Amino acid sequence: MSLPAAISGRLRTILGSRLSETAADRDHHAQSEAFHRSPPPDAVAWPETAEEVAAILSACNDARLPVVAWGTGTSLEGHALPVRGGISLDLSRMDKVLEIRPEDMQASVQPGVTREALNLELRATGLFFPVDPGANASLGGMAATRASGTTAVRYGTMRDNVLGLQVVLADGRIIRTGTRAAKSSAGFDLTALFVGSEGTLGVITELTLRLHGQPEEVAAAVCAFDSLDQAVECVSATIQSGIPMARIEFVDADSARAFNLHSGSSLPEKPHLMIEFHGSPGAVREDAARFGDIAAEFGAQGFDWATTAEDRARLWRMRHGAYHACLALRPGASGLITDVCVPMSHLPAAVHAAAQDIAAEGLVGPILGHVGDGNFHSLLLVDPGNADEIAAAKRVALRMAERALAVGGTISGEHGVGIGKRGLMAAQHGEGWQLMGQIKAALDPHDILNPGKLVPDRN
Amino acid sequence: MSLPAAISGRLRTILGSRLSETAADRDHHAQSEAFHRSPPPDAVAWPETAEEVAAILSACNDARLPVVAWGTGTSLEGHALPVRGGISLDLSRMDKVLEIRPEDMQASVQPGVTREALNLELRATGLFFPVDPGANASLGGMAATRASGTTAVRYGTMRDNVLGLQVVLADGRIIRTGTRAAKSSAGFDLTALFVGSEGTLGVITELTLRLHGQPEEVAAAVCAFDSLDQAVECVSATIQSGIPMARIEFVDADSARAFNLHSGSSLPEKPHLMIEFHGSPGAVREDAARFGDIAAEFGAQGFDWATTAEDRARLWRMRHGAYHACLALRPGASGLITDVCVPMSHLPAAVHAAAQDIAAEGLVGPILGHVGDGNFHSLLLVDPGNADEIAAAKRVALRMAERALAVGGTISGEHGVGIGKRGLMAAQHGEGWQLMGQIKAALDPHDILNPGKLVPDRN
Repeated sequence: MSLPAAISGRLRTILGSRLSETAADRDHHAQSEAFHRSPPPDAVAWPETAEEVAAILSACNDARLPVVAWGTGTSLEGHALPVRGGISLDLSRMDKVLEIRPEDMQASVQPGVTREALNLELRATGLFFPVDPGANASLGGMAATRASGTTAVRYGTMRDNVLGLQVVLADGRIIRTGTRAAKSSAGFDLTALFVGSEGTLGVITELTLRLHGQPEEVAAAVCAFDSLDQAVECVSATIQSGIPMARIEFVDADSARAFNLHSGSSLPEKPHLMIEFHGSPGAVREDAARFGDIAAEFGAQGFDWATTAEDRARLWRMRHGAYHACLALRPGASGLITDVCVPMSHLPAAVHAAAQDIAAEGLVGPILGHVGDGNFHSLLLVDPGNADEIAAAKRVALRMAERALAVGGTISGEHGVGIGKRGLMAAQHGEGWQLMGQIKAALDPHDILNPGKLVPDRN
Repeated sequence: MSLPAAISGRLRTILGSRLSETAADRDHHAQSEAFHRSPPPDAVAWPETAEEVAAILSACNDARLPVVAWGTGTSLEGHALPVRGGISLDLSRMDKVLEIRPEDMQASVQPGVTREALNLELRATGLFFPVDPGANASLGGMAATRASGTTAVRYGTMRDNVLGLQVVLADGRIIRTGTRAAKSSAGFDLTALFVGSEGTLGVITELTLRLHGQPEEVAAAVCAFDSLDQAVECVSATIQSGIPMARIEFVDADSARAFNLHSGSSLPEKPHLMIEFHGSPGAVREDAARFGDIAAEFGAQGFDWATTAEDRARLWRMRHGAYHACLALRPGASGLITDVCVPMSHLPAAVHAAAQDIAAEGLVGPILGHVGDGNFHSLLLVDPGNADEIAAAKRVALRMAERALAVGGTISGEHGVGIGKRGLMAAQHGEGWQLMGQIKAALDPHDILNPGKLVPDRN
């Protein structure tokens, strides 16, 4: 599809050369890191201000043309893929850290700022932004998908760390949600409504973020277990004990093998936990000792404490590289990565059942996750040309989600809905999914914002 | 007004004797603890199940009759007052703790369970529900008003501690929001939308709550300061230092005087901080020592550590009794209590300006608050027969809110909007307030749920 002349002229007036209809630009915005693909957008727009975003949305609303916001393209469920064409709204030029207010532990940023760029700017302040999904995603994209990651067990997800937003609505209105106060009891929580709405309700053009003090003391370690069950039961016991973990990550034996091949580590090919404590020196010492006692009960072995900042950076770089490390286990494979989250007491059984199911289907699928939240992933490695393997992987992913729902969990702890999980939304939410559709229809009557995603199709 | 015959018969069929049109029952539901009053409802209903609530809402939706949910009547801004008549839906009979899941640190409760009743049930589990607004409010009401209180600085508000809800919509549909997982990235955050919606979007009929482990060690203390500014600047410095406070409460000299008269304490008539630390023994010791160092810089004096559980209970009973203690400072007075929340760096100036303003208007108005969140209240004591005093108190409250907005704060940190703050919603939210109205119209097209509150009037 190409843009109709009327809208093309109107957008060209707003954007000049920052509107592209070249095949290269369009194709770049039709793929993301994971398995999903879509037709290309009709054009790609690079706005630089909220007012430009408003003008674009207003024009597209008049023309009934879809608009799909784009951050860094690192989402794993195809959120930003323009399944119905239209404009890919690339926010990468809105990449300014607008203000850091150390005294209030807050920052105001544009949506294209990445989490690493923000933390680089924060280095001198003694503060940091903790939400860490692994990829160097844009903060706007992280808010739109309610991202979390390794540190959510301590610092929360984007839900907990976005205090306010500037949002452009489908009709071009610009609103502000939230405040700079730590809490508010004045009206609907519009901030929470937009966080996780995956671009279907509005386009985020500014974020007010909560920052945290860099911990006085940090301790991190990795340890091995003889069985997956022992490792995961150790997590469950640790969380129930109330020890304040900053990170507690599970990786299975396949993942350990992948790290060894990819990162030059020499972990035993067994399930591992990677843990981190933040706090005052005394508290970290106490927490680490208490964790050591619990882990010993579950047969933990080979505790390797990362004592320097460099060692810790190496440890978490390894964990963050898991996606690419696991992909390299099977050269040429595509990764069908799936993500569920369950109540803590159901975590051991859920991980165990997933592992058995993967083996029974004859697949390679490392399991790893942010298990302190009850959140885990399987990275199912499939030959992209093998329809049987792809079908088997999809069966595994579906059964993981169904088992999560059966115990009161969720079809996605952090990767979101996008293309991959939309078929499960009715099963999770029942009539509540229809309610999401009603809200979407009220805010975006012409269904221009990321249509075909998250909510039910219009009748 | 009395109920039209058609709806009266339909409701009587659902409720039998649990529908009352007596003047006593109606009048009881036309007043709350604070200043606000309203006409009585046409009738009071006491449903016992979600299905009964659904049948009532369906009948009232057909008849276009307002329905206003009622918890314990302890709100301070008149949220539950039926300003347009209709049915007062008293949820006090839905008071069952449905399930406690210690292994997941969760409880499922009906909306009429009070926070004290829940904590009583939890005693043997080693867990507790931390949100503590002072009053023994119902958990449904606390969710509906996004309540917080003394412990929010550590454990968050209702926003952070409600994992899921069962909600009856205006048309009688029953939905479930949220999951039992610690986090979810699957769709709009409907839980957050209903929390704080003050009964305008649906009626909460069940809550899934996050519980917390009782801290291994607790330390609490009270200390005095020579000036309000020193006390509040000490709070600001403490929070910025990152010391994990479980509670940090400010009370001014008038409040201290009120406590002495009401609770038999013998505090110096000076500004005070009341503080509490939760954690492991070592962490609590370190935190208390670090706080002591900071407080000393601001001239703190007379540290009185509450070393036993009884001493701590007495300390916090005194703080929780502040409302009635302050009212007793001026026998016969009504309390116009107002509540704002500001970014931490603006807290000292905001409290200082409020105190000056109260003095300049010639009023008695103790200031106290959950200052670790930047949240403070003034309890303006007025002669209910003196129009000039009431007008002066309203001016003070308005200026507190305006100054909060001017620094990026909120017109209410925790007391909510109700009747008292609706006139300020446009100033706080701008076009966002219209958006709230659009959402309300989509979910409640006939405006039967707590009409005349929170959102703009329909055109």
